[in-house]
Amino acid sequence: MNKYDIIVLGSGPGGYVTAIRASQLGFKTAIIEKENLGGVCLNWGCIPTKALLKSAQVFEYLKHAEDYGLNVKEASHDFDAVVKRSRGVADGMSKGVQFLMKKNKIDVINGYGKIKPGKKVDVDGTEYSADNIIIATGARSRELPSLPQDGKKVIGYREAMSLPKQPKKMIVVGSGAIGVEFAYFYNSMGTEVTIVEYLPNIVPIEDEDVSKQVERSFKKNGINIMTSAEVTSVDTSGDGVKATVKTKKGEEILEADIILSAVGIKTNIENIGLEDVGIVVDRDKILVNDFYQTNIPGYFAIGDVTPGAALAHVASAEGIICVEKLAGMHVEVLDYGNIPGCTYCTPEIASVGLTEKAAREKGLDIKVGKFPFSASGKASAGGNKEGFVKVIFDAKYGEWLGCHMVGAAVTDMIAEAVVARKLETTGHEILKAVHPHPTMSEAVMEAVADAYDECIHI
Amino acid sequence: MNKYDIIVLGSGPGGYVTAIRASQLGFKTAIIEKENLGGVCLNWGCIPTKALLKSAQVFEYLKHAEDYGLNVKEASHDFDAVVKRSRGVADGMSKGVQFLMKKNKIDVINGYGKIKPGKKVDVDGTEYSADNIIIATGARSRELPSLPQDGKKVIGYREAMSLPKQPKKMIVVGSGAIGVEFAYFYNSMGTEVTIVEYLPNIVPIEDEDVSKQVERSFKKNGINIMTSAEVTSVDTSGDGVKATVKTKKGEEILEADIILSAVGIKTNIENIGLEDVGIVVDRDKILVNDFYQTNIPGYFAIGDVTPGAALAHVASAEGIICVEKLAGMHVEVLDYGNIPGCTYCTPEIASVGLTEKAAREKGLDIKVGKFPFSASGKASAGGNKEGFVKVIFDAKYGEWLGCHMVGAAVTDMIAEAVVARKLETTGHEILKAVHPHPTMSEAVMEAVADAYDECIHI
Repeated sequence: MNKYDIIVLGSGPGGYVTAIRASQLGFKTAIIEKENLGGVCLNWGCIPTKALLKSAQVFEYLKHAEDYGLNVKEASHDFDAVVKRSRGVADGMSKGVQFLMKKNKIDVINGYGKIKPGKKVDVDGTEYSADNIIIATGARSRELPSLPQDGKKVIGYREAMSLPKQPKKMIVVGSGAIGVEFAYFYNSMGTEVTIVEYLPNIVPIEDEDVSKQVERSFKKNGINIMTSAEVTSVDTSGDGVKATVKTKKGEEILEADIILSAVGIKTNIENIGLEDVGIVVDRDKILVNDFYQTNIPGYFAIGDVTPGAALAHVASAEGIICVEKLAGMHVEVLDYGNIPGCTYCTPEIASVGLTEKAAREKGLDIKVGKFPFSASGKASAGGNKEGFVKVIFDAKYGEWLGCHMVGAAVTDMIAEAVVARKLETTGHEILKAVHPHPTMSEAVMEAVADAYDECIHI
Repeated sequence: MNKYDIIVLGSGPGGYVTAIRASQLGFKTAIIEKENLGGVCLNWGCIPTKALLKSAQVFEYLKHAEDYGLNVKEASHDFDAVVKRSRGVADGMSKGVQFLMKKNKIDVINGYGKIKPGKKVDVDGTEYSADNIIIATGARSRELPSLPQDGKKVIGYREAMSLPKQPKKMIVVGSGAIGVEFAYFYNSMGTEVTIVEYLPNIVPIEDEDVSKQVERSFKKNGINIMTSAEVTSVDTSGDGVKATVKTKKGEEILEADIILSAVGIKTNIENIGLEDVGIVVDRDKILVNDFYQTNIPGYFAIGDVTPGAALAHVASAEGIICVEKLAGMHVEVLDYGNIPGCTYCTPEIASVGLTEKAAREKGLDIKVGKFPFSASGKASAGGNKEGFVKVIFDAKYGEWLGCHMVGAAVTDMIAEAVVARKLETTGHEILKAVHPHPTMSEAVMEAVADAYDECIHI
């Protein structure tokens, strides 16, 4: 009875989605999880952070109620309650995955899984076998040698999500999505936050205009930002923590209660049996082909452990493609050039495709359009005038190379660009698709119009 | 100096956008406006209502702050300040149009314009002429014989937007976008609201599932709803107003301070010279061809005065097509089957294309998919579990026939469906476009998956 068509190792948004799709396709499927169903995303990532951020956003409304003609006396937050709400949302979602596993007749095996040769998996001493094993063990917070995490004063995202007490002062090292989301959250809650970013811009993978907008907004809201800066050492011996920060101007010592290390991720590929089986790993990633097969037949890998962007939606898409291919379906290879990225601080960030800089570095002849929300009626009415939509088109063929958004609602707006790019749109077609008025989404149409010198509202 | 290439009569979102595009295309352009630039949309419609609704939404957050781990003492609203904010937003946008007119070198002629034969327009005694005259005079609140508006106790949307005092009780007659938006707003502010709708469902042009969802939400929030009901007479002689409402059960008399009549619109086609010129009108609309020419050469009409849906974005699109055609550009005819509609109450409504009922009535073989926000991680995190995305595909050819959304953020999400439909997508392509996690927009992908029995999260 320990034999399956497919065993999935890890139940994050890669693993559990893969298992569901596998089951839909008729495979007898099991999933192995050592902690809670849903993995980091549901329990310690995407979902609980969005709950925290929602509390922060509502708290901002409370603080600025007068702007909307409203009155509030004594707006305050209950940090414990905010965290508790977030944990509750995560627990609810994890229970949801439990329900989905049952509904799809997927066996959930609780324990620590380790793959073995001969398409077997050992789970705490019990052996299971499958025709195909899919590794989806994900990743965790990366530790820098100069910034070892003790889980108390120097923490990762996981601890940052459920601190027993709100810190008065916090240093956030790294300003990718995780770093800026927590910086925004804690600053909103009243913590004094300093971001230390090694590169010249915060949110460094985004278009530079986006980085600048977020930096402006964050500074306006009282977040300290140090770019081209590096934490070279930490001293946790006293009451709080002291960080030595090296900048172009020299060294500086910052004091805080907590340092959040948000400098990227490290894949969970140790001690899961890769070496035993002989699966090839390169630079912390399991190498796979277009359909996620490793070098050893019968063993597959998807999600953060593979080279693509470490994003929940990428993991899910990879897993679906992997099992659809196993089912003999006609499957298209995933287009890694059309993967959106979203960051949920205020202002929100959403982007897909090439940045302006990347497009120019590729030597492409481009048309760039930009529309500021300050010129949008809906943004004015909603009090969301910050930010813009920026679009990049190939000048010759009209291909939509990139779309970069910063502002309210943009994480729900980027799908338009993803779908349109998938459908090989031209700028003209976006321009002539009637966007509803008044919406934030009109800014997409207007930015495209701007690229072609037809913008109406600026 | 009174001679132009193009004169536009009316400066609403049809007129002013037309004038800007005309000027961009090199036409010497003038625009005639008897009130404020921006017309009803900017001054008394889309924009100021969205400002009111934003205040209502923020007020809801204040009232439910505890749900987010926050504390508020004495949340209240200042009705005057709420209205004042809305007026301020409208004024700002109107000034923006003023700026755009100047920037685009469009002559703004203030006054009452009346067209005359020989491609002339009289504005309060001064005559102007143009090669082409574009009528964009829009529409106003329709008055029912049984519900004459006195502007005090029986009012239209215009008065509803700037009442000197918040009514304690209000009857809203008609439950299209305008009706339900005001019903939501006033109910949120603490007014006791009753909706009286003639048809069996509120928001009757929407898919029935959407109507039912909105009805449930509204009732939960304390709005009284009477469907298949008709106001047969009103008595304004006393302190307030008494409305006789006829339902299937018989007659009932409702008392209120104010009745808002929101039973549709009446075009502004009287006394603008149509008869003099000989322009053909049918059922309250000016008849035009695909490029908005009336029966008389040199005279065009766009926006609410023409037969298409009376929506700001339709008017703008028509105007742009009209002048691009005049400029000799290759122009596609507007696809009236792909016009989105948005309503900004809570839950928001957004839709495009055929409803399920309309598709079935056409005898189409369809696939229907639906994804509830209750199964969405982002919706859970945001406290927005109400609502769903529903999609309708042609079973044979995979054409995306309709998309109906109700819930948070949907007015910014519908553009995806509009663009995808314009690009002649199939369901499969939407399914394989990687939507970012966690967003409300994933619900679109999941609804499509549901139509093809591939939904992951339900």
